[in-house]
Amino acid sequence: MVPFNLDEYQKLWKPQIDAVLLEVLDELGEGCPDGLQKAMRHAVLGGGKRLRPILCVAAARACGGGESAALCPGCALELIHAYSLVHDDLPAMDDDDVRRGRPACHKAFGEALAILSGDALLTHAFVVLAESVPAPMAQAAVVMVAKAAGPLGMVGGQADDVGGEGRVSSVDEIEQIHSRKTAALFEAAVGLGGLLAGAAQEQLDALRAYGRALGLAYQVTDDLLAHVGDDKALGRPAGSDRAKNKPTHPVVAGADASQKRISALVQAAITALGPLGGQADALGAIAASVEKRAGKP
Amino acid sequence: MVPFNLDEYQKLWKPQIDAVLLEVLDELGEGCPDGLQKAMRHAVLGGGKRLRPILCVAAARACGGGESAALCPGCALELIHAYSLVHDDLPAMDDDDVRRGRPACHKAFGEALAILSGDALLTHAFVVLAESVPAPMAQAAVVMVAKAAGPLGMVGGQADDVGGEGRVSSVDEIEQIHSRKTAALFEAAVGLGGLLAGAAQEQLDALRAYGRALGLAYQVTDDLLAHVGDDKALGRPAGSDRAKNKPTHPVVAGADASQKRISALVQAAITALGPLGGQADALGAIAASVEKRAGKP
Repeated sequence: MVPFNLDEYQKLWKPQIDAVLLEVLDELGEGCPDGLQKAMRHAVLGGGKRLRPILCVAAARACGGGESAALCPGCALELIHAYSLVHDDLPAMDDDDVRRGRPACHKAFGEALAILSGDALLTHAFVVLAESVPAPMAQAAVVMVAKAAGPLGMVGGQADDVGGEGRVSSVDEIEQIHSRKTAALFEAAVGLGGLLAGAAQEQLDALRAYGRALGLAYQVTDDLLAHVGDDKALGRPAGSDRAKNKPTHPVVAGADASQKRISALVQAAITALGPLGGQADALGAIAASVEKRAGKP
Repeated sequence: MVPFNLDEYQKLWKPQIDAVLLEVLDELGEGCPDGLQKAMRHAVLGGGKRLRPILCVAAARACGGGESAALCPGCALELIHAYSLVHDDLPAMDDDDVRRGRPACHKAFGEALAILSGDALLTHAFVVLAESVPAPMAQAAVVMVAKAAGPLGMVGGQADDVGGEGRVSSVDEIEQIHSRKTAALFEAAVGLGGLLAGAAQEQLDALRAYGRALGLAYQVTDDLLAHVGDDKALGRPAGSDRAKNKPTHPVVAGADASQKRISALVQAAITALGPLGGQADALGAIAASVEKRAGKP
């Protein structure tokens, strides 16, 4: 069997994702205050792997649906991801000055516009999501995404994370935080792609199990890169988590244990794809790439 | 004709609105981090006139629809309103320490939890909204509300407001800001009620014209109460807008001109109700009450 070419897949979809994101921001037009528009563009258009939209598209593929129909809805998730980074970087939160090798939004535009541009991206994501899915699917799509991004999902995880500095100490506690902070939105990304492709319940369950495991693997990888000081792979200065006494997997368990955990989670993600068959090739390759990012070939 | 008894109407609906809001927060349960849950409750349950849900319910009534069907969707708007107050009060924004006679959310829970509880309320509002409307209406409802609350609506107006301190000088500019900052969500509140009641386009247009005029009247009233120093009617310390050199209608045009503008806007709101007939009695009484709040009997 010819292995799936993830590079080609990303080269196919990333420019389309970037184009949709640009179009979404352009379409706001003059009705959007100039400073707010600039801060939103800074947050969204400054690079990024576009992993959540690619997962959404690849999940639609895995369920035999049209990948293009998942493109715009997937971009709504990228808007939500971008907002979360802007708010996470704020002085009152993680207080990070650099993001994706450039000044964080609040360093470039001030705190007020950073808060508001995050609010605007989150709110507008629901316009993009609701408008880009077929009307009969809008309710399920909005509920799925909003639950994943809200107090029981991403925001809840971030609240735990902020509250846990210097306090959380076990790997289980850390993974509980990360399952909300990162994995919930990964799960929604593939769940949304499956929903749009008309996936059966068994397929949706498989996708969500994949998304959970992959999201955890991704977060441990992020923390590992920060721990070993790989600024370049990370896109922001490493070591700031340690400086803040933030509990991460490698801090608590050590780098070797984190590496093993990433491999196990990636394997679990790939195993979860079983019921989806050969069309889950892109999702499988994405999972393998997360392990590679963590330093394992 | 017996005049509509707004007090009775509010006594009927406000407890039901408060009960829905409490239920929505209770239902988050243990999956929501404790600190986040407390900050969200502080923001939502600390009083408030519940004007947006009441407008939503009254608009459904005006279009001959079931008022109860508009109750939960209207509460989603109250969650959005509550989030906007939490973020507006932040030190980087309006820097207000008191809200509804109690400590602002960031004074009670710290800035990080205030930012996150706002994010959580905004996101969860879309769960509440999408789940509480009939599935075939979810797309239209979510797009209507998210557009009103986002960069072309409420957040855009707040960005203009923050950017306009010490700069904006004409009444027209101020009303342009307020039409987004406040009126857009009023318009969505009545538009949503109409949508749920199956309103015809002519009715929806009438409702939206009413909402825009009433929202502007409400904001000028708020600014007038702050200007003349009526802390009690305002629910927060008056005079802070002047201290921040914030351009408001009475600052630029004077208190008398503001009073006249409120009367004209309220009259325009009531006139807009024409096509709706006698069932718009509650909406008419709400408009009249705004003028009364501004000090005119």
